[in-house]
Amino acid sequence: MADINSQFEIGVTTGPIRGSRKIHVGDRKVAMREIDLEPSAGEPPVRVYDTSGPYTDPEAKIDIRAGLAALRREWQLERGDVEEYDAREIKPEDNGQLGPDRSGGVPAFPNVARRVLRAKPGKNLSQMHYARAGIITPEMEYVAERENLGRAALKDVDRDGGQSWGAEIPDYVTPEFVRDEVARGRAIIPSNVNHPECEPMAIGRNFLVKINANIGNSAVASDVANEVDKMVWSIRWGADTVMDLSTGRNIHDTREWIIRNSPVPIGTVPIYQALEKVGGIAEDLTWEIFRDTLIEQAEQGVDYFTIHAGVRLPYVPMTAKRVTGIVSRGGSIMAKWCLSHHKESFLYEKFDEITEICKAYDIAYSLGDGLRPGSIADANDEAQFAELYTLGELTKRAWEQDVQVMIEGPGHVPMHKIKENMDKQLEACGEAPFYTLGPLVTDIAPGYDHITSGIGAAQIGWYGTAMLCYVTPKEHLGLPDRDDVKVGVVTYKLAAHAADLAKGHPAAKVRDDALSKARFEFRWRDQFNLSLDPDTAEQYHDQTLPAEGAKTAHFCSMCGPKFCSMKITQEVRDFAAKQNSDSYLASENIKRETPPEARENAEEGMEEMSRRYKEGGDLYVPADE
Amino acid sequence: MADINSQFEIGVTTGPIRGSRKIHVGDRKVAMREIDLEPSAGEPPVRVYDTSGPYTDPEAKIDIRAGLAALRREWQLERGDVEEYDAREIKPEDNGQLGPDRSGGVPAFPNVARRVLRAKPGKNLSQMHYARAGIITPEMEYVAERENLGRAALKDVDRDGGQSWGAEIPDYVTPEFVRDEVARGRAIIPSNVNHPECEPMAIGRNFLVKINANIGNSAVASDVANEVDKMVWSIRWGADTVMDLSTGRNIHDTREWIIRNSPVPIGTVPIYQALEKVGGIAEDLTWEIFRDTLIEQAEQGVDYFTIHAGVRLPYVPMTAKRVTGIVSRGGSIMAKWCLSHHKESFLYEKFDEITEICKAYDIAYSLGDGLRPGSIADANDEAQFAELYTLGELTKRAWEQDVQVMIEGPGHVPMHKIKENMDKQLEACGEAPFYTLGPLVTDIAPGYDHITSGIGAAQIGWYGTAMLCYVTPKEHLGLPDRDDVKVGVVTYKLAAHAADLAKGHPAAKVRDDALSKARFEFRWRDQFNLSLDPDTAEQYHDQTLPAEGAKTAHFCSMCGPKFCSMKITQEVRDFAAKQNSDSYLASENIKRETPPEARENAEEGMEEMSRRYKEGGDLYVPADE
Repeated sequence: MADINSQFEIGVTTGPIRGSRKIHVGDRKVAMREIDLEPSAGEPPVRVYDTSGPYTDPEAKIDIRAGLAALRREWQLERGDVEEYDAREIKPEDNGQLGPDRSGGVPAFPNVARRVLRAKPGKNLSQMHYARAGIITPEMEYVAERENLGRAALKDVDRDGGQSWGAEIPDYVTPEFVRDEVARGRAIIPSNVNHPECEPMAIGRNFLVKINANIGNSAVASDVANEVDKMVWSIRWGADTVMDLSTGRNIHDTREWIIRNSPVPIGTVPIYQALEKVGGIAEDLTWEIFRDTLIEQAEQGVDYFTIHAGVRLPYVPMTAKRVTGIVSRGGSIMAKWCLSHHKESFLYEKFDEITEICKAYDIAYSLGDGLRPGSIADANDEAQFAELYTLGELTKRAWEQDVQVMIEGPGHVPMHKIKENMDKQLEACGEAPFYTLGPLVTDIAPGYDHITSGIGAAQIGWYGTAMLCYVTPKEHLGLPDRDDVKVGVVTYKLAAHAADLAKGHPAAKVRDDALSKARFEFRWRDQFNLSLDPDTAEQYHDQTLPAEGAKTAHFCSMCGPKFCSMKITQEVRDFAAKQNSDSYLASENIKRETPPEARENAEEGMEEMSRRYKEGGDLYVPADE
Repeated sequence: MADINSQFEIGVTTGPIRGSRKIHVGDRKVAMREIDLEPSAGEPPVRVYDTSGPYTDPEAKIDIRAGLAALRREWQLERGDVEEYDAREIKPEDNGQLGPDRSGGVPAFPNVARRVLRAKPGKNLSQMHYARAGIITPEMEYVAERENLGRAALKDVDRDGGQSWGAEIPDYVTPEFVRDEVARGRAIIPSNVNHPECEPMAIGRNFLVKINANIGNSAVASDVANEVDKMVWSIRWGADTVMDLSTGRNIHDTREWIIRNSPVPIGTVPIYQALEKVGGIAEDLTWEIFRDTLIEQAEQGVDYFTIHAGVRLPYVPMTAKRVTGIVSRGGSIMAKWCLSHHKESFLYEKFDEITEICKAYDIAYSLGDGLRPGSIADANDEAQFAELYTLGELTKRAWEQDVQVMIEGPGHVPMHKIKENMDKQLEACGEAPFYTLGPLVTDIAPGYDHITSGIGAAQIGWYGTAMLCYVTPKEHLGLPDRDDVKVGVVTYKLAAHAADLAKGHPAAKVRDDALSKARFEFRWRDQFNLSLDPDTAEQYHDQTLPAEGAKTAHFCSMCGPKFCSMKITQEVRDFAAKQNSDSYLASENIKRETPPEARENAEEGMEEMSRRYKEGGDLYVPADE
C-alpha cells in the first residue's frame, strides 16, 4: 500500500489507515476501526477507538465544500427544546477587517447556514441538564458504545491490577453510567447544537484518556484546504478534539470551514479573536466585544470555550517574581487588562452571563489556567493554585446552571510535583475533568518537548487527567509542520494509552497483548497494523530488511536467523512441552511460593526433574559432553 | 556554525558541541563543558556534565590508530598492587574464525599492547576493595569533582523539595562520600585496569542518573572508523557508558579499536562472543570456553560484564506460559543450555570463579536479567522476580570478594508496576545500583519506543534507578542509524535529567532555570546553547524564522510581535514595578496565606490597591472607557 502521507484527494487526506477497516457498531452506528490479523494468528480482529471520521471510510464521499453529514441534527430536533433563528451578521472585524471584496481573505464557506439553533426561552440544551433530568440522550448511548470498543463479549477481561488513584472505571460502560458521570460533572460531552456533524465523545476520568491537538492559521491567508487538512490530519492519527487557535485575519471563515468538516469537538480561546477585533490592544477589550464574539462562535458551533476567568487582579502581582512570569496568552492578555484598568477581570465579573450563553447552545467550559507555570522553577506556586481554587469556585457556579465544565492545567512541572496538581484539582473542582498541557518535566530539551511533556502527560493521565493537550517537537521554537503534528499526536496517543493501562482500563490491554503476540510469532504485518503508526513501523523495518520475505521470516534484523532470542524461546517452549507434566509439576510447586522462597523450592523442583530425566535417560546429557 | 553532524575528521566526529567550551576543573583536571551566556544575561557561564571526552576539545589531537592517552595509568601503578604479564594469544575464533590473512576482517588495532596488567597474587584491584580499606582513590576524587559540576559555590542551591524515595543525595559530593558509597555497594566506578583511557564516573542512586548506549557491529565487516564513531557519536550527546553488543566476525578486533578510543566505561555481554566461538549452538557452550572469553575481554579492558547467572534451570519453565517468553538474548541462550543439559547454569555454578577474574582486573558485574518481561502482559511475573532474588544472592557473594555489582532490570512494564520493580530490587540486592532498559510502558507504539521507554525510564530513574539503558526509535524493528542513536541518547538524557530534578539533586535545576530565563528574555542563542541538542533547537527555530535578526528579536514565531505572552508579561512586570510598594504589599498579604484563603485575602488586597489608585488618580481608568 502506498504511503498514506502522500495521498491527497480534494485537498484533504483520505483513505483507510493501513491494515484496518472502518466499521459501524450498534444501534447508533458508532464508528470504529477493525484490524484483521493473519490467519495463522487464529484470533478475531482487534477493534480500536477511531477519531478519524468519514475521511478514512472508502465508502464515504468527501466534499469539504459541502461539509460532513449532520449526524446529530435529528436527535436535537426530537428533543423539541430548540428554536431556529437568523444568525448574527458577519462583520468585517470577524475576519480581521476583511472588506466586502474579500481581497487577501480565504473564500467564505459556500454552504454557510444563516439560520442557526439555540435553546427556546427557558430551556437548557446542555448534556448535563438532560443527565440531571434523568434523560439518557443518543449522545450518551453513542459514547457508551464507543468507550467499550465493541467489547460486549469481554466484560471479564483481565483488569491486571491497575492503580486507578480513586477513579471508578467500570468493567463495562453503560449509557446509564455515562448519564450519571455527566450528571455528577465528572465527565463532559462537548456538543454545541450548531455542530451536528460531531461524533459524540466523552472527556472524564472514568473513560479512556483523550488527547487534543491544536491547530491555527497564521496571520497570512493560506489555502483553506490546508487549514481543513490540519484538522483532518490530526484526527487521522488520534486527536479526540481539536482546538482552533487561529489569530490574524480570516479567523471566522477559517473556523467555519473547520467546524463544518470536523467529526470531533472543536475548542477555541475566544479572547484571541476578541483581541484581534480591538487591534491587539488588551486594554481596549470590553465585555460587549467579548460577548459578541462568544455569540459569533456559538452560532458557528464551537463545542468548548477556553475562558481565563480565573486570572483575577489580585493574583497578577503573584507572578511578578516568577522566572517566566505569565506564559499563557489568554492569561497575559487578561492580566494586562486588569492592571491597566485596575479592575477585576470582566470574565470573572460576567461569568454567569457567559454561562447563560453556554447553556443556550450546549457549549462546555474549558476554564483556562492563565497563570500556569512556564518553567520548572514556577511550578505549583501561589499564583497557579490561587487561580485553581477560583476555577473551582467558577465550576460550581457553572454547575448551578447545569453547564458542562473541564479545567485546564499545566504546563511545566517536575515529576515530583505532578500529583499535587491532580490532587488539588480534584479537591478544588469537585472532580470536574482535568485537561492538561503536558506537563513538561524539564526545560532543557527544546526540540524534544513532545517527549519531555509526554513523560508528564502519561503520569498525570495515570493520576486522573481526562484529556491531554499535545505538544509538538516545535514547541518553544516554531510552528509545527505536518510531520510535527503527526509526531505530537502519536506521542500523546501512546502516553494516553499508557495511562489507560496503568489505571487498569479493561479495554486497554487487549491491543498490547495482540501486538506482543504478533511480535513473538513474527507476524510482522500484524505488528505493523496493530501499532499506532503502521506506516512508520513498516518503514523502519524495511530500512533494514526490505525483502518482502522478511515480513514473514521467523527472525528479526536485531539478531539474525541464528541468534534470535524469540526463536530460541520457542524452542525452549517446545522442549518444555515435550517433558509431559514433570517440569510443570515442578514449576507449579514454585508457583505456589513467592521469592525468595521460590529459590529453595525451585531447587527441589530441579532435583525432581533431574531424577525423572535420569530415569528417562535418553534426553539427559552429561554436562561435560 | 556549520552543522556538527556533518563534521568528520580522521573518521570520527570531532569539534566542540556548539556554544560550549571544554574546561578541566580541579587537581584531577576533570573534563566539563562550560556554556557562555550573552552579556545581557549578566550571569556566569553554566557548567554541564561532559561525557564526550577529548573529541570535543579543539586542543586535543585525535588519532584513533594511536588511541586516547592513558589518564589513569599512573594512578594504577602508584598503588603498587598490579603486575604486567603477556596477554593471552589472539585465536581465530576470537574474530569469527578469521584466518591469519585476515581476509574479510577489519584491520587489527596497530598499537595493541601485548603486555597487560592484573592484580598481583592475593591482591584485589576493585575500587570497592580500596573503598572498604578506607582508601580514597584518584578515581573517587575525579568522580566527586565531576558530580558537583564545579558547583563549590552553590552548596546552598535550592533543593526545591525533591522527592528522593529514600535516596541520600548530599548537598555537596566529597571524595569521602564517594568512597563510602562504593564501600557500601551503593555505587560503582567501572574501571578495568586495562582501560586506563577511561574518565572515572560513578553509577549509583545518590549520584546523577546515568545513561548507557548500545552499539554493535553487524555480522559483516564494516569500516572500523565507523565502529569507533558509533561510540564517539553516542558519548558526544551524553552516553555515560557504552555497551559493545557485537556479534558475528571481528568481535575482538572491533572491541580493541573501541576500548582504546573510549573515555567512557565499556560493557559487554561475554556470552555473545562465547556463542560465536561454538558456532551459535547454545548447547555446545562450556565453562572453559566462557572463562577463556572472560580473560580475553578482561585483558582488553572491558569495564563491566553482563552475566546472566540468575537464569536458573528451575525458573525456565516459569516462562513457558508467557506472552513473549524469554526476550533477553543471553537469557534465552542460558535457558536453552540449561534445558538441553538439564543442568544448573554454569554461570551460576561457577559464579565465584568469575568473581575471581573480576577482582583481578576490577571489572564490575552487571548481573543480567535474562528473564525480564518482553511485553506488558509478562511484567512483574514469577520468573522475573525469582531471578531478581537470585541476583540479590549473587550480589552478596560478589561483595564478599569486594567486587562491584549493578543489577539489570526490565524491559516492558506498565506504569503502575514500575515502582514495585525498584522496591524489590532495593530489598533483594542490598541497594546495589539498578540499571534498567526503559521500561517501555506500552507495547503498541513500535517506531516510537524511545518515547514509550523514555516515559518508564524517567519514572524508574526518579524512584532510584542509577543508570538507564537507552532505546532507539528502531527498537523491535531494525538497526539504529546515526540519527536514531542521537535521538535515543538525547531522549534518555532528558529522562535522566527529569529524574534528577524530581529527586531534588542540587545540581540539576541550575540548567533548567538558566534556559528558562534565556527563553523569557528572548536570548535565543543562549536557549539553543543550553539545550541538550543545540543544533536541532536552532534548526527548528530557523525553519520558521530564518532571519538572523530573529535570534535577538523580542518575540517568537508562535505569537508574532504584537501577541507574545512573554512580551506582555514583561509589560505586566514593568507596570507592577511602577506601582511603588502597594501592589507588593497587597501581594505579600496574600503570600502569607494559602488557597483557598488566598482568594479572600486577595480581594482585600485588591480593594486596598483600588483605593490607593483612586487617590493617585492618574493611573485609574474607568472600566467603561
